[in-house]
Amino acid sequence: MKPRYRPLLSNARATLTHEVLAIDERGRSSTISIPAERPLTVYVDKRELVTLMTLGGAPEALTLGYLRNQRLVRSIDEVVSVQVDWSVDAVAVVTRHGIADVEERTAKKVVTTGCGQGSVFGGLMDEVDQIALPPNARLPQSVVYRIVETIRTQQSVYKQAGSVHGCALFTGSGELLYFIEDVGRHNAVDAIAGLMWLEGLAGEDKVFYTTGRLTSEMVIKGAQMGIPFLLSRSGTTQMGHMVAQKVGMSLLARCTGKHFLLLAGHERLVFEPDLLEAAARLA
Amino acid sequence: MKPRYRPLLSNARATLTHEVLAIDERGRSSTISIPAERPLTVYVDKRELVTLMTLGGAPEALTLGYLRNQRLVRSIDEVVSVQVDWSVDAVAVVTRHGIADVEERTAKKVVTTGCGQGSVFGGLMDEVDQIALPPNARLPQSVVYRIVETIRTQQSVYKQAGSVHGCALFTGSGELLYFIEDVGRHNAVDAIAGLMWLEGLAGEDKVFYTTGRLTSEMVIKGAQMGIPFLLSRSGTTQMGHMVAQKVGMSLLARCTGKHFLLLAGHERLVFEPDLLEAAARLA
Repeated sequence: MKPRYRPLLSNARATLTHEVLAIDERGRSSTISIPAERPLTVYVDKRELVTLMTLGGAPEALTLGYLRNQRLVRSIDEVVSVQVDWSVDAVAVVTRHGIADVEERTAKKVVTTGCGQGSVFGGLMDEVDQIALPPNARLPQSVVYRIVETIRTQQSVYKQAGSVHGCALFTGSGELLYFIEDVGRHNAVDAIAGLMWLEGLAGEDKVFYTTGRLTSEMVIKGAQMGIPFLLSRSGTTQMGHMVAQKVGMSLLARCTGKHFLLLAGHERLVFEPDLLEAAARLA
Repeated sequence: MKPRYRPLLSNARATLTHEVLAIDERGRSSTISIPAERPLTVYVDKRELVTLMTLGGAPEALTLGYLRNQRLVRSIDEVVSVQVDWSVDAVAVVTRHGIADVEERTAKKVVTTGCGQGSVFGGLMDEVDQIALPPNARLPQSVVYRIVETIRTQQSVYKQAGSVHGCALFTGSGELLYFIEDVGRHNAVDAIAGLMWLEGLAGEDKVFYTTGRLTSEMVIKGAQMGIPFLLSRSGTTQMGHMVAQKVGMSLLARCTGKHFLLLAGHERLVFEPDLLEAAARLA
């Protein structure tokens, strides 16, 4: 079979942390790391589209995922190249046929709850009504624990500098596929969407994990990506919960250690009570 | 003197929490509270401007603060009325003379790091260059502790339902003026900006506290509001730090208990070493 099409991409991962002087409550000076935050202005076919504030760890994937999740480009085959140039804080995207009626489609502004990618163009909720997640997808409790443990032991900017959100994509058996951090969790989820797009991965049998809250936009994006399982270290909101129920997505909040709260898509989780007894015996 | 001008405001505080079924890792069911999240579409002089995703606790103040922080309306006197109608998830703003060249001024989109109000219209950084915070404003360490303790003991949606950010405005002596929570910290800071606008409060001698991160947009908004002191339970980012240094703002991160990290505007903090000795003696 012929190899997957791949747009021409730069590889412009930027420095992810920055050192600053900190003075504590006793007047003691030290040097601490904080996460980078930089603007990335997206030009599509030489037209300025948006400026994303980002950590800068995966700017090409972020750009692709942004275009995908905003439904501005329908197919990766439409993307000729994505070239990031930090000397001007910009990324130049070239498409094969341009973005149809981009003016109209970028006109409607929704300022959302999410960190990072606060703005979605209109029509997301309309789209949600057409989403059908695979009805038979199931997630064993043991896989939830494998995922939480993988995240706990993951090297990260967060551990070094704090103040970033992490998102990860796992297989249905809990193997880590992607781990992306950004100053905003919406950039992180978009970057993962970009990587899935590049690799032609479907969401149907995947599990998405985020350190951030499962607000409406996060759940909508997970649904757009066709992912039936959303896990979070944090909680959810009324609209995030409502959207998850609407599309039949499994929402697991407060995932830490052996604990979690299943808030939607209850039928998808396969409980394994023996796991906890085993853990208790070991403890 | 004549009373301050006040636009006609609705008082449409909505229900702030919502109960959902939660199933824990042992299969035990319980009912938990999660924060509300609802769209609020802002119409200015019958023109649709933006949709904000909000908790709904202070929609009129949020709308005013959004218009102010986006620099879409220059003076509160320009605002005739702000009427929220949750039956259609909309707020109707009537202005005296309309928003000048609104098309152009809302065209430029920046998707920022912030929770909640992820989108700022263009030109914020240009404006930062013109901001001069009062050079002599000082903050005693004891006031930092008074503020942190006030927040710790504050009744909040966060304590009941989690997943919201809180922002608060304090006087220079640490008296609480406003405490606002929202699903996004950017809505919370905008709502406080709206209240300051209504009451004609200047930022010059105030202290701003947020539970969220001090990303670029939060620091820019604090600077726009003329507030020389930003405190956070959380951390900052490289651009947040850079903007604070640029405008001479005091940034205190990781404020919990007696601990904090002073990251910018070092000269503004008045250290009181005796406080810690006194606290140690009591402990």
